Amino acid sequence: MLLLRKPYLLFLGDATSPVTAKTALGVAEWCPADVVGELRFAGATVTTGKPALSVAQAVAAGAGSLLIGIAPAGGQLPPHWLPTLIEAAAAGLDIVSGLHTRLSGIPELVAAAAAAGVQLHDVRHGDWPRVTGTGRKRPGRRLLTVGTDCALGKKYTALALARSLQARGVAATFRATGQTGIMISGGGVAIDAVVADFIAGVAEQLSPDNHAGHWDVIEGQGSLFHPAYAGVSLGLLHGSQPDALVLCHDPSRTHLDALPGYQTPRLENAIEMYLQAGRLTNPAVRCIGISVNSSSLGEAAWRAYRDRIEAELGLPVVDPIRGGVEALAAAITHQQETCHDN
Amino acid sequence: MLLLRKPYLLFLGDATSPVTAKTALGVAEWCPADVVGELRFAGATVTTGKPALSVAQAVAAGAGSLLIGIAPAGGQLPPHWLPTLIEAAAAGLDIVSGLHTRLSGIPELVAAAAAAGVQLHDVRHGDWPRVTGTGRKRPGRRLLTVGTDCALGKKYTALALARSLQARGVAATFRATGQTGIMISGGGVAIDAVVADFIAGVAEQLSPDNHAGHWDVIEGQGSLFHPAYAGVSLGLLHGSQPDALVLCHDPSRTHLDALPGYQTPRLENAIEMYLQAGRLTNPAVRCIGISVNSSSLGEAAWRAYRDRIEAELGLPVVDPIRGGVEALAAAITHQQETCHDN
Repeated sequence: MLLLRKPYLLFLGDATSPVTAKTALGVAEWCPADVVGELRFAGATVTTGKPALSVAQAVAAGAGSLLIGIAPAGGQLPPHWLPTLIEAAAAGLDIVSGLHTRLSGIPELVAAAAAAGVQLHDVRHGDWPRVTGTGRKRPGRRLLTVGTDCALGKKYTALALARSLQARGVAATFRATGQTGIMISGGGVAIDAVVADFIAGVAEQLSPDNHAGHWDVIEGQGSLFHPAYAGVSLGLLHGSQPDALVLCHDPSRTHLDALPGYQTPRLENAIEMYLQAGRLTNPAVRCIGISVNSSSLGEAAWRAYRDRIEAELGLPVVDPIRGGVEALAAAITHQQETCHDN
Repeated sequence: MLLLRKPYLLFLGDATSPVTAKTALGVAEWCPADVVGELRFAGATVTTGKPALSVAQAVAAGAGSLLIGIAPAGGQLPPHWLPTLIEAAAAGLDIVSGLHTRLSGIPELVAAAAAAGVQLHDVRHGDWPRVTGTGRKRPGRRLLTVGTDCALGKKYTALALARSLQARGVAATFRATGQTGIMISGGGVAIDAVVADFIAGVAEQLSPDNHAGHWDVIEGQGSLFHPAYAGVSLGLLHGSQPDALVLCHDPSRTHLDALPGYQTPRLENAIEMYLQAGRLTNPAVRCIGISVNSSSLGEAAWRAYRDRIEAELGLPVVDPIRGGVEALAAAITHQQETCHDN
C-alpha cells in the first residue's frame, strides 16, 4: 500500500478554476489538520483558505510533502511548474502527483529528489502489490460503499461516514481506493490500476486484521452494473469482505452515465445483486442504507423521494451533502451494539 | 493483442518430465501443422513426436519462432539454454517465452534480437492494451467457457469446441486468454495480466466485430465463485458478450481447489449466476451445455453421472477427453439454425 508523508503543502500553481483545483479543495476540506498551507503563483484566483506559504516557509512549518492539488487540461505537467517542484524536493519535501505526466520521468526532478533523499509519488501510476486473494475471513468490521453507477458519491459517502463514526467514538478508518481518497487519507491503493489477477488480494490487504470493534470504511469503485468496470467492483467487494454495504445512487440517472443503452438498475435489484455477490466472502453482509446524490431535486422533491424510498426499502436514506450521514452512522452503531449483545 | 509468428520450433531443452513440457506437448497436440520440429538437448527424454531439428534446420524449414515449451522449476531460465536462444535469434527466429524470467531482461539476448531484427515475446509479462470497455454489442456470435472453479478444463473445452465447429463447416475462431492458449493459437491476451480498469475493454477487443455466422470460442478464466479471481471472470464475461456459455465442472471437487472454506456451487446455481451476470451486456445469453472433467470417475460412474445431470438440467453433458464435445457443437449448430430461421 502507498503511504504519503503528511502534512501537505498544497500546490495550486496558477489555478483559476475550482474544478481544476478540486484535489486541493477536497484535501483541505477532508483533512484540514494535515495541511500547513498552500503555494499559489501570482495569477492564481483559487484558494483553499489556508495560508499562502513559500517552500521554505512550508518546510519551517513542518510540511512533509508538496501535493500537486491542481489538474491542468490533459493532465500534463506545465514546464513552468518544474522549478518550484525541484526547489521543494531539494528542500526535503516529498512530491505527490496524480497527473498523467510521471514525476519519475522528469530527469531534473528525479536527480533533485535523489540528492535530497525524498520520494516522488505518482499516485496514478503506483507500482501496486502483486498478491493473490485468500478468501480468509479477517477480524474487525468493514463497510463498503457501492453504486448503481460510477461517479455518484461513493468516496464522499465513505469519508463522511468515517468522520461521523469517529465523532460517535467508534474506532473507524477511511480506506482509499482512488487517488483523491489516497491523498486525503495519506495512504491506500488505486484499485483500478492493480493487475487484474490481484484485485481481491490487494483489497484484502487494504483493510487488514483489526480489533472486533473497529470499522474500516472502504471507498467503493465503479459499479457491478457497468459494462466496463464491474470486474473491479466485484474484486473489491470480495476482497473487502464487508459486513455492511451502503448503496449510492443518483435518481436523475435513468441510464448509466454516457451509456444510453444501459438502464440504471432498480434499487432493490441492485441491493440484491450486491448482497448475493458479497455473500461469497462474507455470508453475513447486509445493506444498511442508501446514500443519494439529490443535487437534481428541489428540497420538497428530495424529501418526498427520501420518504418514499425509506418506506419501500425499510432502510435509512440520506444525502451526505444535504443532511449528513447520521442516519447511516446510527444504523452501524446499532448493528454493532446488536452484535455485541450476541 | 499479441500476435506470434508461426510456425514454431519447439524448444524442449533437457526435459525429462512430460509435466514440465506440457506447453510443448499442448502446442504439438492442438496446432501440429504449426510446428516444424523440436529442439532437444542430449539428455532430454520427452518428445512431441515432431522431428528433431537444429536451429539452422528449423530456419531452413521455414520456422518463424523458437517457442520455449518447457517450464523449469521456479520458472527461471537456466543459463545453459542461453547460447541456443541467442543462436536462434541471430538466425532470424522470434523467441516466445512464458517463463517468469523476462527475455527482455537478458542483455545478450536483447542485443542479438536487435541485431537480427527479431522479436522477444514474454507472454507472461505482455504490455497489454489499456482500453476501456464500451458495452457496445458487436456483430458475430460468441461462446465463452466458464467454470465452477479454476483449472478444470475451460481452455481444453474451448479448443475442442472450436475444432469441432470448424469440422462441421462452421466459421469458428479460438480466442486465447491465457499464455498456453496464446501459444497454441498464435495470438490473444493474458487477461489476468491486464490492468483492472481495462479487463472488459481488452476482452471486447479480443473478439471484434465479425460476420453473423461466425463464432468466437473464448477461453474462460477463473470463476465467479472464486474469492481471488471473480473480478477477472466477470470482466471477461462482460467484455465477451457471449451468446452461449458452456459451464465447466469437476464433480470430485466438493470445495474449491486449495480453499476448503469455499464450497463448489451447485450446477444450477452456477448457471443462474453466470446468466444473470452475462445478461448485462447480452440479454440473450444462454447456457448450452456442461463440460465435465470426469477423470475421478470410472466409466460406469461417469455414464451414470452424465445421464443424471442431463436429466436434471435438460442440457447436454460431455467430457471432452472421454467422448468429445460433439453434443455441444450440435447444440451450437442447432441454435444457429434456429436463429437463421427467425
